[in-house]
Amino acid sequence: MSNYQIITESDLRIFTQSVFKAIGCSELDAILATDVLIEADLKGIDSHGVARLVGYVRLFENGRINTKPNIQVVRNKKSVFSIDGDAGLGLVVAPRVMEMVIEKTKEYGSSYAAVGNSNHFGIAAYHATKALEHDFIGFSMTNASPLVAPTYSKERMLGTNPICYAIPAGEELPFILDMATSAAANGKLEIAERENKPLPEGWVEMQNGQSTIDPKALKAGGYLLPLGSDKDHGSHKGYGLGALVDILSGVLSGANFGPWVPPFVSFLPVLPNLPGKGLGHFMGAIDVDGLMDIQDFKNKMDLWIQRFKSAERKNPNQSVIIHGEPEFTTKNQRQSSGIPIIENVAKDLISITEKYHLEHPFES
Amino acid sequence: MSNYQIITESDLRIFTQSVFKAIGCSELDAILATDVLIEADLKGIDSHGVARLVGYVRLFENGRINTKPNIQVVRNKKSVFSIDGDAGLGLVVAPRVMEMVIEKTKEYGSSYAAVGNSNHFGIAAYHATKALEHDFIGFSMTNASPLVAPTYSKERMLGTNPICYAIPAGEELPFILDMATSAAANGKLEIAERENKPLPEGWVEMQNGQSTIDPKALKAGGYLLPLGSDKDHGSHKGYGLGALVDILSGVLSGANFGPWVPPFVSFLPVLPNLPGKGLGHFMGAIDVDGLMDIQDFKNKMDLWIQRFKSAERKNPNQSVIIHGEPEFTTKNQRQSSGIPIIENVAKDLISITEKYHLEHPFES
Repeated sequence: MSNYQIITESDLRIFTQSVFKAIGCSELDAILATDVLIEADLKGIDSHGVARLVGYVRLFENGRINTKPNIQVVRNKKSVFSIDGDAGLGLVVAPRVMEMVIEKTKEYGSSYAAVGNSNHFGIAAYHATKALEHDFIGFSMTNASPLVAPTYSKERMLGTNPICYAIPAGEELPFILDMATSAAANGKLEIAERENKPLPEGWVEMQNGQSTIDPKALKAGGYLLPLGSDKDHGSHKGYGLGALVDILSGVLSGANFGPWVPPFVSFLPVLPNLPGKGLGHFMGAIDVDGLMDIQDFKNKMDLWIQRFKSAERKNPNQSVIIHGEPEFTTKNQRQSSGIPIIENVAKDLISITEKYHLEHPFES
Repeated sequence: MSNYQIITESDLRIFTQSVFKAIGCSELDAILATDVLIEADLKGIDSHGVARLVGYVRLFENGRINTKPNIQVVRNKKSVFSIDGDAGLGLVVAPRVMEMVIEKTKEYGSSYAAVGNSNHFGIAAYHATKALEHDFIGFSMTNASPLVAPTYSKERMLGTNPICYAIPAGEELPFILDMATSAAANGKLEIAERENKPLPEGWVEMQNGQSTIDPKALKAGGYLLPLGSDKDHGSHKGYGLGALVDILSGVLSGANFGPWVPPFVSFLPVLPNLPGKGLGHFMGAIDVDGLMDIQDFKNKMDLWIQRFKSAERKNPNQSVIIHGEPEFTTKNQRQSSGIPIIENVAKDLISITEKYHLEHPFES
């Protein structure tokens, strides 16, 4: 990692809340939006934490985020409903909708919500894991600004469109799969660029369709490849998953989809003749106890996890991953010893404090 | 393709039904199971069609399939329910459950079913696409005999665990994503072996953990790699998706999971101390009209599909795939000009006719 400073979770929360309040969020919304961002920083998904705060502020300044949204149910049929997020922060809209999903799931055994007219919602895992408190399975996905080209195409058509499923266990930690549907997420490219390291082949191609290992190629107009990287290795599956997320999150919610999803960065233009509003999410929950006795299920999940942990290793020193565990470990560490904020991010964050007359916990 | 003979759809149906009846299926169940298998042959997914018929017969002969199952709801809560398939053919159990899912979706807007104590259900797309007749989104997944090793492991722990989503469109064909969660499905290895061609690297590894391009390596005790192939290219995502399918289909349904899923081939032993019964599926549907006016949704899906078809191509002669379209094209061709059955499959099929005193449409 390049140069960084360590900030306590508490200081980072107070600072982040002050920024959201400065752009017009209510006290409660600022706390909520902060909780989503800080969860990413705690879990080590630094690309989706406070590193994005300046991005949200710039979107607000460009009139693309409404910090006093009137979040409304547009249509519903018992277990399913769709939402207009009123151009609110996804960091606020998505948690509010997940609360509604949980209420519906208590009543009907399961629920789905398609959320349109929203903005980037942070890490998908934040929303899906809320279901675990109720012994529900939770899931969340979102479309995002186009960066990924379909198999056989060299045009940015899809976001990195993540999918997250959170599944409760007993003694073991919950199973939490949170994955971008591209071969590599943006955050990994940023790390490679910062450390000046070449990328593996199969992550990015240049605008002209040629393969590259240059971490700057995406910013130079290239595109990300879907999970699978090429047709021989199943890139049509990664493209298919990204397309599925786009359709469920974007088309079904009345949001934009495909290449029309508005860019996260405020300096890129929004395309004309948009087919929808903002971007979209798709979220839901399942009441496990409606299908199987919950304690029986948890015992079996513990068995599942223990069996997979004990799978024969290729390298005796390299353990088999259970999804969600590495992030829990990082969270525990960072809750006690603080969150590393790299210098460029700290500089960016300090830059907004001047404009909004805010105090900050960073060393300048 | 190696040597083959062309059989009409109608002749292949009559023959396949006669086999299912010979092993004890009712007339209706035989028609249903046949419909599932023939759909795979029509769509060009030859590995999952009548090529598997002999496998089902052998499982029956080994007492692992009950051709007169009493399919029962084990537990339910409004929109969700779980099923004991009574060791029936997955080809019969899954379509029956999908009918129940559709009725529940009419009532509650969505539905999920976890199906335990079942057997292999053919192509996932057969079940998910049934939802389209009602303008619903349908999905289906299943766990399967262990062949795939998790990232960092060299042990067969997961099946190729497919996921299918079927989404209605308007003028355009429906979007149907049907994908194994491994880098390559079994069928592709079989084709390579038949044609004596090397595999791409990243599909299979040998028992000792070494990479290989030998199409016989899997049969020699090797294992398949998850989608992504290696950690650098996201194999932890493919492993995570396969794990998700295993948990939802196997754990949540009371079926077996992970390495305990019984083998499809009858000559391999079933492990002792099984945690569940048979194998499992997870299926569901969503009433689109509960979230968005159905005509509005279909119009937007048409726009989605047309926009993706017109995405900038890398090679002017290679069009961008819309999931489901290639299979529809093959189905149209084969419905009019017949289904190619390769010689080895024909020989296998002829071999069971002698035992059960059946007529067959193949040239010997």
